[in-house]
Amino acid sequence: MSIIDKPIGVFDSGIGGMTVLKALTEAMPNESFVYFGDSARVPYGTKSAPVVKQFSLQNSLFLLKHNVKLIVVACNSASALALQFLQERLSIPVIGVIEPGVKALMKESAGDPVGVIGTRATISSGAYQNAIKKYDENRKIFVQPCPLFVPLIEEGMTNGEIPIKIAEYYLNSMKLERIGALLLGCTHYPLMREVIAQVMGEAVTVVDSAGTTAESVKEELKQRGWLKSQGFPSLDFYASDVSSEIERRSRAFFGGELPVVKKVEFEVADFWV
Amino acid sequence: MSIIDKPIGVFDSGIGGMTVLKALTEAMPNESFVYFGDSARVPYGTKSAPVVKQFSLQNSLFLLKHNVKLIVVACNSASALALQFLQERLSIPVIGVIEPGVKALMKESAGDPVGVIGTRATISSGAYQNAIKKYDENRKIFVQPCPLFVPLIEEGMTNGEIPIKIAEYYLNSMKLERIGALLLGCTHYPLMREVIAQVMGEAVTVVDSAGTTAESVKEELKQRGWLKSQGFPSLDFYASDVSSEIERRSRAFFGGELPVVKKVEFEVADFWV
Repeated sequence: MSIIDKPIGVFDSGIGGMTVLKALTEAMPNESFVYFGDSARVPYGTKSAPVVKQFSLQNSLFLLKHNVKLIVVACNSASALALQFLQERLSIPVIGVIEPGVKALMKESAGDPVGVIGTRATISSGAYQNAIKKYDENRKIFVQPCPLFVPLIEEGMTNGEIPIKIAEYYLNSMKLERIGALLLGCTHYPLMREVIAQVMGEAVTVVDSAGTTAESVKEELKQRGWLKSQGFPSLDFYASDVSSEIERRSRAFFGGELPVVKKVEFEVADFWV
Repeated sequence: MSIIDKPIGVFDSGIGGMTVLKALTEAMPNESFVYFGDSARVPYGTKSAPVVKQFSLQNSLFLLKHNVKLIVVACNSASALALQFLQERLSIPVIGVIEPGVKALMKESAGDPVGVIGTRATISSGAYQNAIKKYDENRKIFVQPCPLFVPLIEEGMTNGEIPIKIAEYYLNSMKLERIGALLLGCTHYPLMREVIAQVMGEAVTVVDSAGTTAESVKEELKQRGWLKSQGFPSLDFYASDVSSEIERRSRAFFGGELPVVKKVEFEVADFWV
């Protein structure tokens, strides 16, 4: 198989990365994808750097066995803690969501102070703070870990009194900082966008990294001459834990019907057997 | 080393099992313990039976390497899904928290309807419902999974408006059933006992399995002639992920100062290396 015909690998700690996968399939409708969700070990955002690196490497090796030409780390915690670790070890390109997220944030914030929310692991890594400073070293940055958002979203509790109370609890102090734009620094959070936007108010633009990540991947493939512009794509799903819920919830994350699909398959990743 | 001098092994998906460890050390002050918390793969309560069995077996093999004479599964999800699986495979006794929990519940409920709360995995396994029916097949049983309690407790949010709102959300319908006693079917939940008791009201006795599990372990060791009645105990801690938080939080779960400790050690379990 020539490299251009190989699929793109995408992994996440669970199913949050489906929000990125959707943008990827829309930006590159002829590309095939292999998605791996580490649902047996989810979440990553409460865990330490050595563990997230180890898991990310195992996930990448699984994708490499499926003959991928490029890997997208569709998880902010893994991008923040393990991107360089993977790039140093793998011979194919590896693209994370931090840089693309910052690109989107800078575009929308027009010089105003900016905010970033994410898991505890992502925020305390300093990855976003460092990436923003590279763009604009004088920019005012406010960050806030929101560790209960992922379990809320995983439970499907994305609106109503409880999510609003929890969003207010995390975001009320950032609201006072008069930021221009807020980056959703976790691939789960777009599912709670309405509640977050409601709590932050109309003056704040809420941004996520899905679209700009897809653009970065497309640009990388173009530059290498690896971008597929014809043919029928396939979409294969793998997960380290398979429950009756995961297919239904994956479709919800993906946002409606899956596109042209040759095969949708869930199985226990072989490093557990 | 004679078998009587060997330590008791205890594992949990994380640090919730420390509530059981505390009861064990109080009931058997001369016994040594090796505790393993699978903090790299926590939680178990949202995962499927094959995965929880696999993880539980790996944890048990880790404890066996540390020469334990008996294993306590200090996690309700693992007890519900993997106890028999472990008992069939290991040559040493394995004791879970389900049967002891039911024993405590039946003692406190005096014929009244009973309630059990736990993770989604524990409740949907039917393990508690089956164990209660063995005691009293006509007893009315009401169950409720409370999947947000573990993340709340892991975040240290055990009182105030948000935990009360979430407890009301889960428990309001059970409150109408006029149960006599409610079993906390998750080793984390004792940390939220006050909020749960407040929401359920004074007529309901809130019960956990820590004390009766310790009694069951002591009885098993006595019967085998393996109970240690003298000597200085040791207490060794292992975790599959080590963060700056884990030792501090473990001590909070344990409830105050750790007792006579020869060695407290946190290291990455060797099956990750």
